Amino acid sequence: MTASKTNTGNFFEDFRVGQLFAHATPRTLTVGDVALYNALYGARFAVQSCEPFAQAIGYRRAPVDDLMVFHVVFGKSVPDISRNAIANLGYADCRFLTPVYPGDTLTAVSEVIGIKENSNHTSGVVYVRTTGRKQTGEIVLEFVRWVMLRKRNLAAAAPAAVVPKLAERVDPALLAKAVPAIDVKRYAFALAGEAYRWADYRPGERLDHAEAMTLEEAEHQLATRLYQNTARVHFNQHEQAQGQFKRRLVYGGIIMSLARALSYNGLANCFHIAAINGGRHVAPAFAGDTIYAWSEILELSEIPLRRDIGAVRARLVAVKNRAAADFPLLTAAGSYAEGVLLDLDLWLILPR
Amino acid sequence: MTASKTNTGNFFEDFRVGQLFAHATPRTLTVGDVALYNALYGARFAVQSCEPFAQAIGYRRAPVDDLMVFHVVFGKSVPDISRNAIANLGYADCRFLTPVYPGDTLTAVSEVIGIKENSNHTSGVVYVRTTGRKQTGEIVLEFVRWVMLRKRNLAAAAPAAVVPKLAERVDPALLAKAVPAIDVKRYAFALAGEAYRWADYRPGERLDHAEAMTLEEAEHQLATRLYQNTARVHFNQHEQAQGQFKRRLVYGGIIMSLARALSYNGLANCFHIAAINGGRHVAPAFAGDTIYAWSEILELSEIPLRRDIGAVRARLVAVKNRAAADFPLLTAAGSYAEGVLLDLDLWLILPR
Amino acid sequence: MTASKTNTGNFFEDFRVGQLFAHATPRTLTVGDVALYNALYGARFAVQSCEPFAQAIGYRRAPVDDLMVFHVVFGKSVPDISRNAIANLGYADCRFLTPVYPGDTLTAVSEVIGIKENSNHTSGVVYVRTTGRKQTGEIVLEFVRWVMLRKRNLAAAAPAAVVPKLAERVDPALLAKAVPAIDVKRYAFALAGEAYRWADYRPGERLDHAEAMTLEEAEHQLATRLYQNTARVHFNQHEQAQGQFKRRLVYGGIIMSLARALSYNGLANCFHIAAINGGRHVAPAFAGDTIYAWSEILELSEIPLRRDIGAVRARLVAVKNRAAADFPLLTAAGSYAEGVLLDLDLWLILPR
Repeated sequence: MTASKTNTGNFFEDFRVGQLFAHATPRTLTVGDVALYNALYGARFAVQSCEPFAQAIGYRRAPVDDLMVFHVVFGKSVPDISRNAIANLGYADCRFLTPVYPGDTLTAVSEVIGIKENSNHTSGVVYVRTTGRKQTGEIVLEFVRWVMLRKRNLAAAAPAAVVPKLAERVDPALLAKAVPAIDVKRYAFALAGEAYRWADYRPGERLDHAEAMTLEEAEHQLATRLYQNTARVHFNQHEQAQGQFKRRLVYGGIIMSLARALSYNGLANCFHIAAINGGRHVAPAFAGDTIYAWSEILELSEIPLRRDIGAVRARLVAVKNRAAADFPLLTAAGSYAEGVLLDLDLWLILPR
Repeated sequence: MTASKTNTGNFFEDFRVGQLFAHATPRTLTVGDVALYNALYGARFAVQSCEPFAQAIGYRRAPVDDLMVFHVVFGKSVPDISRNAIANLGYADCRFLTPVYPGDTLTAVSEVIGIKENSNHTSGVVYVRTTGRKQTGEIVLEFVRWVMLRKRNLAAAAPAAVVPKLAERVDPALLAKAVPAIDVKRYAFALAGEAYRWADYRPGERLDHAEAMTLEEAEHQLATRLYQNTARVHFNQHEQAQGQFKRRLVYGGIIMSLARALSYNGLANCFHIAAINGGRHVAPAFAGDTIYAWSEILELSEIPLRRDIGAVRARLVAVKNRAAADFPLLTAAGSYAEGVLLDLDLWLILPR
Repeated sequence: MTASKTNTGNFFEDFRVGQLFAHATPRTLTVGDVALYNALYGARFAVQSCEPFAQAIGYRRAPVDDLMVFHVVFGKSVPDISRNAIANLGYADCRFLTPVYPGDTLTAVSEVIGIKENSNHTSGVVYVRTTGRKQTGEIVLEFVRWVMLRKRNLAAAAPAAVVPKLAERVDPALLAKAVPAIDVKRYAFALAGEAYRWADYRPGERLDHAEAMTLEEAEHQLATRLYQNTARVHFNQHEQAQGQFKRRLVYGGIIMSLARALSYNGLANCFHIAAINGGRHVAPAFAGDTIYAWSEILELSEIPLRRDIGAVRARLVAVKNRAAADFPLLTAAGSYAEGVLLDLDLWLILPR
């Protein structure tokens, strides 16, 4: 008898628009997960680091880092959606909708919202909208991602192409549902590490986050397993040694979290990611790479009915093996510059 | 004055049948330990991962992974029993008897139940039965293991050989003492990740668990320290560089935990290890090795008075640096095949 | 617009005697942090490992390891004090004043108490007294440290030299403020791992702690980030490759914690560090180094009004890539011997 009970994942031709996946495994987050997340990235945002700080300004308690919530929900979708992915191409319309606290349990479902075969007929792109919920049924986040998947059977016919229309950015009116009313008088700027409020940032302003982190194999593997993300390219050196890169690939979400943690230096009061308007993993990262990050302020927006907080739209760029003091992004020819890893477009929340 | 207060461990001639050891250090397990365990192995079994899932089916809360309990109890015995071991030869008659929850404190005692000098008179085998208890006095697990120990004094006389008789497998009537009454109607198979119940498995069925993990030095050291296991071969490269393998050896329990985590793919509803009937570490593992796993169903058994759950006896085999799709185990000559690391014989519990 | 909001740290000429820093970020410690600390060092002291043990002898619950408290408070001071340090030269007058439990939140302030330019006029030494408090306002520890800092502007004038007078050791009358009344009858020596009490140690006694640990990059980075210590020399291989050592330096506090964990073997009942009388990082450590440790008992002292506990003053020495059985410390010429990393002078607390 053969291993018919083993999940070997879906391939391009297994997806249909409208298809729904209820992902395994539900996951209760704890202060243990938070400690490990902190040790992996070194984040220092006061709201997530300090119970009394979070409670003073209006949270029930210190919330779990937004990107940890993202990674855990994302991780659940991997066995069904991207176990056999060639590449995780992009994100859009990611909104954080409810604070997540230690003790909360996350589940995830995904709906296929687009499919398009590549012109080589050996692979194609699948678009899914993934929704994470907590044990109460409340949605904690939603996002769209698209991945390139190989075909199992090259002769399989492809369905008609459906490519979803995705907004360039999340409407500010939809932001900050996950932020309670903030008592800004009790927000201790000195303890948070910087004096800058919402109105202190200006479109066009660029910030070199100045610090950097060199990645180790053990670190990215620990992180990716913490999220129960099983994508084999991150863990199996025996197999990867035969592949294009000869090495394990670092889960792209790790670059997101590192860049976010580094961005504390200059954006210390951007205590919440309200939305990921878009994101691209421009190049792969490997153990031994040193990650730097910089940000550009793209836009400021008020949030309807909120006088306590404002939104800053920022481009957060991670680069590797080069300092970010000269804000590397594009070449003269318009392609991404050497060393650019990640190009994220975020709505960040600050006290006013 | 010299370091007479330092424990340098026992040698073969220090053991006598009937000898009792009350091991240091009692250890309170927390959600922090659980988070780290998850990050080290990537387990996805729903009962251990999710508080509401565990509570819905009848647990007081999500129990600690069975093998984590095993490793912590095992670790306590190392300074007294196996600090100077040449090899950890085998396990038998390991039964899990009470669920362990975060907040519980584990202690361990061992009794010497067998001793046999090797024919070379430079080493010998010691058999111990180790019992782990929680703070209430309840036994959480018992197991027998045997280790090869060198002699400190080659001239030391050996006692008469005593080799304990060990059953080939644990009697099914003794299984599942650690499993509360399970409300199978509330066991959400879709969330757990697979649809298979007890009756869906058949003796002779083999499952390639399909995923793999490459081990790093930092990972196995973190894990082994988490269990407060002090065996020097895992930690001291300066000393190991002079030894047979030139490298640190990975604690065998890590291979057990990795294989168990990989076995989720195909055995997702085997939510509890009720017993380890036997186990052998066939070959050493080192950092850089990639671990694959496969299982063979050996036997199905009802459990007296339990209509909620059934037991599946499975052989869980871990191999390194080769895929498990062809179920590697023995050579034509009957010895273990190249790459086989671990041969475990388990009783697993599933919903009926 | 340039990155004016980014903190690039202070340089020698930025400090003035009397200057005060309220450091970011407040940090709530959890059982998750404790689990990771245990996995990083493998400590086995019963009071910190076991809730019922700690409660039986008089603690409210198992306290957080003293050196973890030290590292977290120290880490807060790094962005303001030592981000641009050439070297962390020494510690003195470090006293632990209140037990810290999971759930407590730590903050830190520092006062500049000394400044002295080096004769080369390119750098200088800054002395600070750092105070850590918990959310109640209680001081949990105080210590003095001095660091060598480079000048940003070599032409900057130096203030008059002020070098604080520091006692050689903390007065025993000031010790053990962080230790509740201990019920020694309920201190289970067998479970703690050794039988030795205060009166069993003698000045001049030396103990080889016998175990050793080889350090990995991922381990020291995880630990240092756990403490939110941002000193770039620990994390940025891309930058370090251009420097003196070509490699990331291990945060000296990691050597302190490893040596302390190793010292369990021989000092198992020294359950609390009451004071660090002085300490020097003699040489840098790097990933791949194997750390051994030994101790010498320097002095025994009663503590006024305490019949439950006594203090042992011990020199704790960490060495690398050589065993500690011959107690390596000084050369015949009086300089530190090859391989010595750390020379700590501690007051330790034991049951009487």
